Amino acid sequence: MPASTTPPYAIARQKRRARYDEATIYAILDAGLVAHVGFIASERPMVMPMAYGRDGDTLFIHGASTTRIIKEVPERMPVCLTVTLVDGIVAARSAFHHSMNYRSVVVHGSARPVDNPEEHEQALRVITEHLLPGRWDEVRPILPKERKATGVLALSIEAASVKVREGGPIDEATDYALPIWAGVIPVTTALGRPIDDGRRAPGTGIPASFAAARLKFA
Amino acid sequence: MPASTTPPYAIARQKRRARYDEATIYAILDAGLVAHVGFIASERPMVMPMAYGRDGDTLFIHGASTTRIIKEVPERMPVCLTVTLVDGIVAARSAFHHSMNYRSVVVHGSARPVDNPEEHEQALRVITEHLLPGRWDEVRPILPKERKATGVLALSIEAASVKVREGGPIDEATDYALPIWAGVIPVTTALGRPIDDGRRAPGTGIPASFAAARLKFA
Repeated sequence: MPASTTPPYAIARQKRRARYDEATIYAILDAGLVAHVGFIASERPMVMPMAYGRDGDTLFIHGASTTRIIKEVPERMPVCLTVTLVDGIVAARSAFHHSMNYRSVVVHGSARPVDNPEEHEQALRVITEHLLPGRWDEVRPILPKERKATGVLALSIEAASVKVREGGPIDEATDYALPIWAGVIPVTTALGRPIDDGRRAPGTGIPASFAAARLKFA
Repeated sequence: MPASTTPPYAIARQKRRARYDEATIYAILDAGLVAHVGFIASERPMVMPMAYGRDGDTLFIHGASTTRIIKEVPERMPVCLTVTLVDGIVAARSAFHHSMNYRSVVVHGSARPVDNPEEHEQALRVITEHLLPGRWDEVRPILPKERKATGVLALSIEAASVKVREGGPIDEATDYALPIWAGVIPVTTALGRPIDDGRRAPGTGIPASFAAARLKFA
């Protein structure tokens, strides 16, 4: 699909906050630190924060093989995976027009267990490198017992919707004269200076993947 | 329940990441900017990012009266509301032991529509002041038509589970000799300098609620 041509002022209105182009969807998914994964367990909704990674239009999530979402997954499990980036608090002259600036993607799809060894390793690489690009080749190779202890689910993006709100508050025309401050308080997420675990082997420096992560999430 | 006495080193193990004391639950809920709200719609899981607020053991969420979660709510709707604070990326000497530091609360309960006018106004105050403490009394009072346009759901916390991971990576004993950097990259969320909307009435200064927000979310 082509990039959205919705003009910025229109995005502030609830009905127009939905955008669906692939580039926007991927950009938001790639910029998130954590996904909130929803599924149905015992007829109730369940939402868990999870690490994830994207490979084309497939999302991978993982967990210990003993985790409920990993252990109980049937052949095809309906899943909703949501990633939200908070960009600001929008303060208006009335409570009603307060809002938040954010970018979010809601993905719907079916999750399937990943059993194929090559896809399983690729999934673990993708999840690891989502947070630390290039990290996979910096670390000790994965062992068979570690592979076995890690369950992986693949989620094909069957449908996705994007919501973006940006810009300042939109107040009632008659409210602009009020002596009330209105605007945006930016919200930023940043990576700090790495803290080693105190057991660094001699000559071990900060790896390239950390600079890549800082570039990615800055 | 009393505060958890799990020693810090034990928290790193998956099985021990669950803590349930009320003070911890409330502290995490109060420190979140956005909640991920899960419900079942057309037999599928749905996860939406939403603003929220807490009043005792009741959580309030709101949306335009036309929003699906607000419009379609039956008398009692099972809801899972999750708040996650990301604190760090944990880099280990093997891919397997990579992790994240975070604090999360998963709340289960039943949502009910809030119709009572007093509770409705209290809910809107609580949601507004979750992000900007004291803001309600700084702004123009809410109008009847605005109240009508805003649907509110109340969610009593029937069950909640907390997961916390903190501290550095825990590597395999034989991996510590490897020349691989391991430790934590802190992740921080911060509020920036407020940007007004360019339509500030003369003499209008930055309100006290912004300093309160900065204290709360710093």
